[in-house]
Amino acid sequence: MKVLAIGSHPDDIEIGCGGALLRHRAVGDQVRAIVLTGGGRGGEEVTNNLAATRCQEAHAAAKLMDIEVECWDYQDTEIPETFEAVQRIEKLVEAYKPDRVYIPYGQDTHQDHRVTSNVAKSACRKVKQILEYEEPSSYNSFNATYWIDITPYVQTKFEAIKLHESQGHKQILKIKSIEGLNLYRGYQSHVEYAEGFVTFRFLES
Amino acid sequence: MKVLAIGSHPDDIEIGCGGALLRHRAVGDQVRAIVLTGGGRGGEEVTNNLAATRCQEAHAAAKLMDIEVECWDYQDTEIPETFEAVQRIEKLVEAYKPDRVYIPYGQDTHQDHRVTSNVAKSACRKVKQILEYEEPSSYNSFNATYWIDITPYVQTKFEAIKLHESQGHKQILKIKSIEGLNLYRGYQSHVEYAEGFVTFRFLES
Amino acid sequence: MKVLAIGSHPDDIEIGCGGALLRHRAVGDQVRAIVLTGGGRGGEEVTNNLAATRCQEAHAAAKLMDIEVECWDYQDTEIPETFEAVQRIEKLVEAYKPDRVYIPYGQDTHQDHRVTSNVAKSACRKVKQILEYEEPSSYNSFNATYWIDITPYVQTKFEAIKLHESQGHKQILKIKSIEGLNLYRGYQSHVEYAEGFVTFRFLES
Amino acid sequence: MKVLAIGSHPDDIEIGCGGALLRHRAVGDQVRAIVLTGGGRGGEEVTNNLAATRCQEAHAAAKLMDIEVECWDYQDTEIPETFEAVQRIEKLVEAYKPDRVYIPYGQDTHQDHRVTSNVAKSACRKVKQILEYEEPSSYNSFNATYWIDITPYVQTKFEAIKLHESQGHKQILKIKSIEGLNLYRGYQSHVEYAEGFVTFRFLES
Amino acid sequence: MKVLAIGSHPDDIEIGCGGALLRHRAVGDQVRAIVLTGGGRGGEEVTNNLAATRCQEAHAAAKLMDIEVECWDYQDTEIPETFEAVQRIEKLVEAYKPDRVYIPYGQDTHQDHRVTSNVAKSACRKVKQILEYEEPSSYNSFNATYWIDITPYVQTKFEAIKLHESQGHKQILKIKSIEGLNLYRGYQSHVEYAEGFVTFRFLES
Amino acid sequence: MKVLAIGSHPDDIEIGCGGALLRHRAVGDQVRAIVLTGGGRGGEEVTNNLAATRCQEAHAAAKLMDIEVECWDYQDTEIPETFEAVQRIEKLVEAYKPDRVYIPYGQDTHQDHRVTSNVAKSACRKVKQILEYEEPSSYNSFNATYWIDITPYVQTKFEAIKLHESQGHKQILKIKSIEGLNLYRGYQSHVEYAEGFVTFRFLES
Repeated sequence: MKVLAIGSHPDDIEIGCGGALLRHRAVGDQVRAIVLTGGGRGGEEVTNNLAATRCQEAHAAAKLMDIEVECWDYQDTEIPETFEAVQRIEKLVEAYKPDRVYIPYGQDTHQDHRVTSNVAKSACRKVKQILEYEEPSSYNSFNATYWIDITPYVQTKFEAIKLHESQGHKQILKIKSIEGLNLYRGYQSHVEYAEGFVTFRFLES
Repeated sequence: MKVLAIGSHPDDIEIGCGGALLRHRAVGDQVRAIVLTGGGRGGEEVTNNLAATRCQEAHAAAKLMDIEVECWDYQDTEIPETFEAVQRIEKLVEAYKPDRVYIPYGQDTHQDHRVTSNVAKSACRKVKQILEYEEPSSYNSFNATYWIDITPYVQTKFEAIKLHESQGHKQILKIKSIEGLNLYRGYQSHVEYAEGFVTFRFLES
Repeated sequence: MKVLAIGSHPDDIEIGCGGALLRHRAVGDQVRAIVLTGGGRGGEEVTNNLAATRCQEAHAAAKLMDIEVECWDYQDTEIPETFEAVQRIEKLVEAYKPDRVYIPYGQDTHQDHRVTSNVAKSACRKVKQILEYEEPSSYNSFNATYWIDITPYVQTKFEAIKLHESQGHKQILKIKSIEGLNLYRGYQSHVEYAEGFVTFRFLES
Repeated sequence: MKVLAIGSHPDDIEIGCGGALLRHRAVGDQVRAIVLTGGGRGGEEVTNNLAATRCQEAHAAAKLMDIEVECWDYQDTEIPETFEAVQRIEKLVEAYKPDRVYIPYGQDTHQDHRVTSNVAKSACRKVKQILEYEEPSSYNSFNATYWIDITPYVQTKFEAIKLHESQGHKQILKIKSIEGLNLYRGYQSHVEYAEGFVTFRFLES
Repeated sequence: MKVLAIGSHPDDIEIGCGGALLRHRAVGDQVRAIVLTGGGRGGEEVTNNLAATRCQEAHAAAKLMDIEVECWDYQDTEIPETFEAVQRIEKLVEAYKPDRVYIPYGQDTHQDHRVTSNVAKSACRKVKQILEYEEPSSYNSFNATYWIDITPYVQTKFEAIKLHESQGHKQILKIKSIEGLNLYRGYQSHVEYAEGFVTFRFLES
Repeated sequence: MKVLAIGSHPDDIEIGCGGALLRHRAVGDQVRAIVLTGGGRGGEEVTNNLAATRCQEAHAAAKLMDIEVECWDYQDTEIPETFEAVQRIEKLVEAYKPDRVYIPYGQDTHQDHRVTSNVAKSACRKVKQILEYEEPSSYNSFNATYWIDITPYVQTKFEAIKLHESQGHKQILKIKSIEGLNLYRGYQSHVEYAEGFVTFRFLES
């Protein structure tokens, strides 16, 4: 199976579907990840070179997870909902032909996540499995319709998140939160740790 | 994979997930079906021996689909939402250990369908994949979260529905409706014919 | 009754509410349609003069359906959610005073459709009947609350869609999809073919 | 147009769709109402003969509204969700052939209202317009999808509710509440007073 | 403030709102709990005297939590949705006059929980704050609208759950689940541990 | 308690949560209000100096309500969903440290209201109580999850709305509407007048 994960900023993918990607690798699936911005703001003031640093962290995390990643050059907090953005993803999708795509949840307080979700949905018209992952900024109305057991991979997932060192103390807090979230999704699906997804489209064929 | 389908009346399963069951058989999965009532009313006045006739039709359809079926003896329009009913299904589930269970959608104008759905959800606490299928009596609020491509199996599905001959003319109308429904679910998932499901629980593991 | 239909691109209106408009004409209602863009992209690369061609097709389809249409000059994929756009529609609404307005569904993967829907809702504050129509790009969460029987008009509807010849092969696929959709909405409302709508507002008075 | 209104207890219909029924009469439609119980509890202790009294009040209100009403003999708080109940309504529907049916909203704290709503939905399979009306006991999740302007009829509606004299002081409080509700539905639909409905099914044909 | 908690079986209340009740006690609120059945089945075969044992456990847990509890005598898995049940709770409510009532969530795979929720909603017509709590059997569609920080009380909550010793090994598993759930609700509301609720009604006055 | 109210235009706050703010003042809470634009369009053509006039009216209303207000300088109908806007609110929130924030409802026909709601949600990550208020332009899907009894304050609320004199006749119509709305929310929560809110987040701690 060929898998594509799309995120707005470095660490979004690790948080939302890092365990799922590790499972894909464990069963031999091919995994590529696209990060639309370098996360130059990091949620705070713009720091010079932050995007470059965060992109390096994304590569370190990808190496740990044994997946391929590339950072695109959209501006943090300003990802545009344009035909150009749709088309850029579409070209990649047409070349790579993924069987499954992971994208941010469409209802989120962070505009970048909403735009990334919309743009990806438009670009992935022909993909059979589109799963929306959740993040701390997702609205509480996120109702999982698909769960992936990540129990064997959860520690590596957390290691990958920790590699985003520029995020510092914030990152440690995130890990506690994400552990609570993954325990809850495990609780819903009767395993120890799980990631939950909303299936925008999911065709068994 | 071991699959279990639960229905309230003969022909419910064929209509709601007949194509999916045929796909399971095509890929070598084991399939068992349980029909909780003989459908003695058939939606109209009670006719003597109707339940026996309809149960025979269920067996004929099952033979065509190459699956196992058994009819239970609850009364049509009076399936009880009781601990006994939960337990009876639970015992079967514990012995058979299905990987996936198909059940009626919980929001339906027909009380039997609602009760069957509830009772099955309680009985299948430990099953990893529970999919709710739709029927003509399901509420319009049915929003599919999972689709199965049934294009290669749709004609056999309709043949199986036609084997419920006691339902006569009504059955022919149903087939036209079901074709429209399966075309629509195909339209949503970008194939010709599909069945749509609501994932009450679905764990990838 | 005076009816107004608003679409983002040529053929959106025919697909989403073409049957309904034909019914309105059949009972003597007045029907006007506004297409906000010429659809210069047609979903692919920009082709020179495509907007002009598509607008001519819209007029041919309108002639077949015996309705009035005008194409506005917003840019395909860039319809702006601005006061100016609201006001432009509002002026038309205040002059024409429609009893019913058909607009795109607000939850859609295509940004133009979402913007058109929002802008139209703002502009039609005083209209008593506002119905959102569905398109292939509408989210699956579209739950119809109003159905219109289009059985006598469905072939003419498909003829009108076919007149959008510049869309070529894509259009033929669309028609199969739309037929599945209209069969399904018929299935829900117990007729052969229907169009389904979400009533943003609907006052019986 | 032939209209049927179904209620659980005397005064439910007046409260939920009394204004709509008055509008139907004003435009010459035929209106029949069925009350499934005599309301023998009246929400409190059972009082001897209360059902008979309340049924007389229902007739007085019906006379004022110029509609036909009949009280059935199900027990207050014990309306059964059975095939027999479905069939009894179904027979009436097949004889009367209503174009539109008003029924209680399916999500309600009062079990009688939920059962009446379910049973009516099953019995009205072939009716083209089924509207669920709201009552003080309806869940707050009631989201109107259809509004009827009752401004010219609202005073007569309140008079009809007042004729349920056995409900005494409680009734006066209800009228204040209902006025607030009808003002709100008017506010949503841009008239002074309106009743709001959820369209379980609504076919324009 | 006077608080009432209503549960179907011993340990339901501790699981769903045990932390909230401990917080109420910590700030000096009065807390009463009603358990509608003795839980004679305990989810498995009926064991003689199980209801009596479980009721004693409920009292032990209540003592630890410093709240008052009483077990009623409805039959496990057979709580009736009747006027009698509504009235029995209503009398208690009218005598005790609680400011806030905690009840099970209305959408649950366990029929007892659904019936308890419905009956309580009818009986608490005049209560200003009604919060639905969640349990492992609640549907995943539970979307919290109110959170209570239980961080200081979470260990005592788990101690109280453990006092239901007759539930044995099952109980230990439950605690792990509940911890995941409470971490998740904390994650949503930005504290360490929280309980989440759906506000059926909540009036600030 | 420290309270912050955020609105898009002068009079939005008074309409959506004016009664709640008056209650806060009555119990001694501190209340600050921020209006993001001067409302220079007033829903119609731009009139010179209108923003200045409307801002004065906002101050007059604030004086009557005994709260603090400031008008910001975003352009009416053009509030930007940008990092800058988030940050500007965030700074205020970090300095003022409100316990509760009132914001517009996120689903609204008016783009300014949607943007204000999104931007405020991002900026108030650390606020424990975020309540979305409703306005005439809110979608009908607004389902209150929190109610505040404003019976003693409703006349003052209307006085405050009337002080927006530049809105002239439109304002009088609004007051009738708002009264219907507040009566309805009172009806839902069993008091005379109430304001309803959607709790985006609400932590009791």
